[in-house]
Amino acid sequence: MTRRDRIELGLTAAGVALAALCHFAGFTPVLTFLVAAGALALLARLVGTATEQLGARLGSGSASVIQSALGNLPELFIALFALNAGLMNVVQAALVGSILANSVLVLGIAFVVGGLKNGPQMFNSERARLVSTLTFLAAATMAIPSLAHEFHAPAEAHGEALSLICAVVLLVVFVLTLPGFLRSAPGEEHEPARWSVAATAIVLGAAGAGAAFTSNWFVDALTPAIETLHMSEEFAGLVIVAIAGNAVENVVGVQLAARNRADFAVGVIVNSSLQVALALTPVLVLLSLLFATHLTLVFPTLLAIVLLIAGILGALIANDGRSTWEEGVVLVGFYVVIAASFWWGT
Amino acid sequence: MTRRDRIELGLTAAGVALAALCHFAGFTPVLTFLVAAGALALLARLVGTATEQLGARLGSGSASVIQSALGNLPELFIALFALNAGLMNVVQAALVGSILANSVLVLGIAFVVGGLKNGPQMFNSERARLVSTLTFLAAATMAIPSLAHEFHAPAEAHGEALSLICAVVLLVVFVLTLPGFLRSAPGEEHEPARWSVAATAIVLGAAGAGAAFTSNWFVDALTPAIETLHMSEEFAGLVIVAIAGNAVENVVGVQLAARNRADFAVGVIVNSSLQVALALTPVLVLLSLLFATHLTLVFPTLLAIVLLIAGILGALIANDGRSTWEEGVVLVGFYVVIAASFWWGT
Amino acid sequence: MTRRDRIELGLTAAGVALAALCHFAGFTPVLTFLVAAGALALLARLVGTATEQLGARLGSGSASVIQSALGNLPELFIALFALNAGLMNVVQAALVGSILANSVLVLGIAFVVGGLKNGPQMFNSERARLVSTLTFLAAATMAIPSLAHEFHAPAEAHGEALSLICAVVLLVVFVLTLPGFLRSAPGEEHEPARWSVAATAIVLGAAGAGAAFTSNWFVDALTPAIETLHMSEEFAGLVIVAIAGNAVENVVGVQLAARNRADFAVGVIVNSSLQVALALTPVLVLLSLLFATHLTLVFPTLLAIVLLIAGILGALIANDGRSTWEEGVVLVGFYVVIAASFWWGT
Repeated sequence: MTRRDRIELGLTAAGVALAALCHFAGFTPVLTFLVAAGALALLARLVGTATEQLGARLGSGSASVIQSALGNLPELFIALFALNAGLMNVVQAALVGSILANSVLVLGIAFVVGGLKNGPQMFNSERARLVSTLTFLAAATMAIPSLAHEFHAPAEAHGEALSLICAVVLLVVFVLTLPGFLRSAPGEEHEPARWSVAATAIVLGAAGAGAAFTSNWFVDALTPAIETLHMSEEFAGLVIVAIAGNAVENVVGVQLAARNRADFAVGVIVNSSLQVALALTPVLVLLSLLFATHLTLVFPTLLAIVLLIAGILGALIANDGRSTWEEGVVLVGFYVVIAASFWWGT
Repeated sequence: MTRRDRIELGLTAAGVALAALCHFAGFTPVLTFLVAAGALALLARLVGTATEQLGARLGSGSASVIQSALGNLPELFIALFALNAGLMNVVQAALVGSILANSVLVLGIAFVVGGLKNGPQMFNSERARLVSTLTFLAAATMAIPSLAHEFHAPAEAHGEALSLICAVVLLVVFVLTLPGFLRSAPGEEHEPARWSVAATAIVLGAAGAGAAFTSNWFVDALTPAIETLHMSEEFAGLVIVAIAGNAVENVVGVQLAARNRADFAVGVIVNSSLQVALALTPVLVLLSLLFATHLTLVFPTLLAIVLLIAGILGALIANDGRSTWEEGVVLVGFYVVIAASFWWGT
Repeated sequence: MTRRDRIELGLTAAGVALAALCHFAGFTPVLTFLVAAGALALLARLVGTATEQLGARLGSGSASVIQSALGNLPELFIALFALNAGLMNVVQAALVGSILANSVLVLGIAFVVGGLKNGPQMFNSERARLVSTLTFLAAATMAIPSLAHEFHAPAEAHGEALSLICAVVLLVVFVLTLPGFLRSAPGEEHEPARWSVAATAIVLGAAGAGAAFTSNWFVDALTPAIETLHMSEEFAGLVIVAIAGNAVENVVGVQLAARNRADFAVGVIVNSSLQVALALTPVLVLLSLLFATHLTLVFPTLLAIVLLIAGILGALIANDGRSTWEEGVVLVGFYVVIAASFWWGT
């Protein structure tokens, strides 16, 4: 382990400890909520680092399977605890929010940072295009149950059936495309493993357990905290959960853009969106059958529309093949206006 | 006529005969419905083969005019009989469904088959792009009356006027673009005619008459059949009529993709969508003025939205310029979810 | 000044004089309305010519700032007078209509003219793509408050707050992107200044004053005129105001297409849309705080949807990189159907 690794480990452990303190000492829910969100962001990043180390040991084939399975672990825990607490709105908003946070906010920041540092950047790789097109298609599929619910009265009573069909379709696509698609992207360098297998396993286990506990504290504090802050459940899911679970983890995408590796940056960032749509979403829908609150894909209509627009936008920008910091600025602005729209909620 | 031609003729004749048997022997409507759908699919394919033979005789200029006029003959007959029976929902869904069946389902299958057999396929031809962009524009135009009806209260009472304006615009675009646009695509090989002019004329006449009769039996069986199957009118139109009238006819597109002629495949498949939007739709709107039920372009809102999404998707995929079997899988999945949404109807 | 300049000046002065005559002689409002619309179109063009002359004197850096500030002067005056008269619907429709008039109608005409004269035209420049992508992003941002109002019930009461946030975001993007982005496009030739500084200043001042007066007469005649013509306020804004304020000014884009400079033409035409979204819209929202009627970005829903579609379409067409007259025909047809939808209004 390098010094940097140790700092990351220490910071994350401190974050989790702080969140535990807030929770058990009965601090105000707003503080617990914010500290737990920060700790979850650090855990999401640590899980990312650990699966990367595992990947360096196991070869990229199995690595990508593990990365897909574990990469969204913190989000999965938050969603399961939130579902258990009946917070359907938070979970739905967090799913769409994860796609938005990646495909709009993080991509925008990567364009601004990359563009200011390196001038207009090209990313003509087939991989960036393929991932973007697939993400649009997956987002459009994911939006259909909501659109059917809002605009096709006879389907209104069948939202759950339609959500299950949609989840199965997404999962089948995921399983079919996983082996070929998630294979090591050309140009991706695999650094040699810095951690021993044992260390990696311990970190992964500890981070997983940490994520489970912290998610619990986070969800506990959520309802009182958002009431104090006059924030809606949708905003909490769309912005707070999504940024904690995704954006920090994707700092790597921004770093790649800064290092003028725009192609790889776009691939990594949009790929996170794709995994939320193809893996996290259907798994949650199916797992939720074991809970009292069944998760459906009948989102609030505006969420579904925003999901569609984000999908189109991602595909258009990737097809354009060139990013400038101006595009980045407008992407971030677009995200701000969407986030503001959900400040008020049910 | 080759052996293959004779098999096609024989199969089609047998299909029509079987449909007639079902109809006149008073078999259960579900059986008649399915057999007639199959016979119509074979007739659609036969009309396609016959107009191709005519094209080989007449030169591609006049051929394309005839192909446009006759290619959608079976769908035209189904729509007219359905309108006559007051089944507006079926006709509207069949129009949108034809565009979806081509631009989403058949295109998806072509990508899967072509991709699995030949690896990622490129289709950078200007023609594929032009057809896709035109199709998106035509689909967007076609969707406006529905969107106006749903989202612009003052236009609600004027759906028929708006549909007529829209139909005239589409028809004018069709007439203006027909000569230049439908001319023989570069790369398209015209095989020498295998059939004599007389044989071609007889087949065309017989296929036309067969389509007229079979459409009648199909529409007769439709209402009782969908009641037995608990299927909606929209589903019958969107899926059954559209696949019978289009998809089988477009097996040729899938074959082209399998032979690694992706460019030509995309052109052929999306061109079918374009002809539905620019020719079949306005002709039906105008012809319906002679019927008691006037066909409007005020579709159920979800149909209009799905039409728009399919248009955007087609244009994005064609601009992307490269297809993989993964994209094909997601396209087919998207189609399945849309079809499922319309299982429940009015 | 050349002979052509003098003709332009004379025509514009005559137009304004005629509008004044109609207004003060108490002619029928319909006549005043149409004559004032014509005069405003000529004024918009004259302001364009004058700012170009100023640009030739000042160097392209400062020129573009001035052009952005003054180019939309006539529209700004019309909007302010209309807001003062409480005609919110007209102003909202005019904003969306300006984007549509440029990105759909004028672009369509440029494609038809350019395509018929020069055959299919290529425009692969990065600038055309960048402007189109930015315009789509800005249009999507601008559409969010309306979509939130229609589809997210809790945000309904907060349309004004959301509009202000959106306006500030758009304005920040404008200010940030102005210096780098509006700099002289490569390939843009700056002809030497034909007018003296004094002449330019006089023309600008006179055109500004003329625009202010004529806007007043135009808005005065608007309400009685549209009642006589059975036209809706939305149609007046979307079509009449937008074409008077934009389309004529953009004849230059069509001329560029005719001279086979498709790249530059697309850039100029779509750039006008971008400035409406990034500059005119937020400035009007903020200025309207001084009026009794506050302008919000909560448009009638169909306007917001049409804005989104126009944005997608512009980006797709620019990414496609090739225009044909067929695309132009469908774009014009699309515009006709949208305009027809708004003939009926509130």
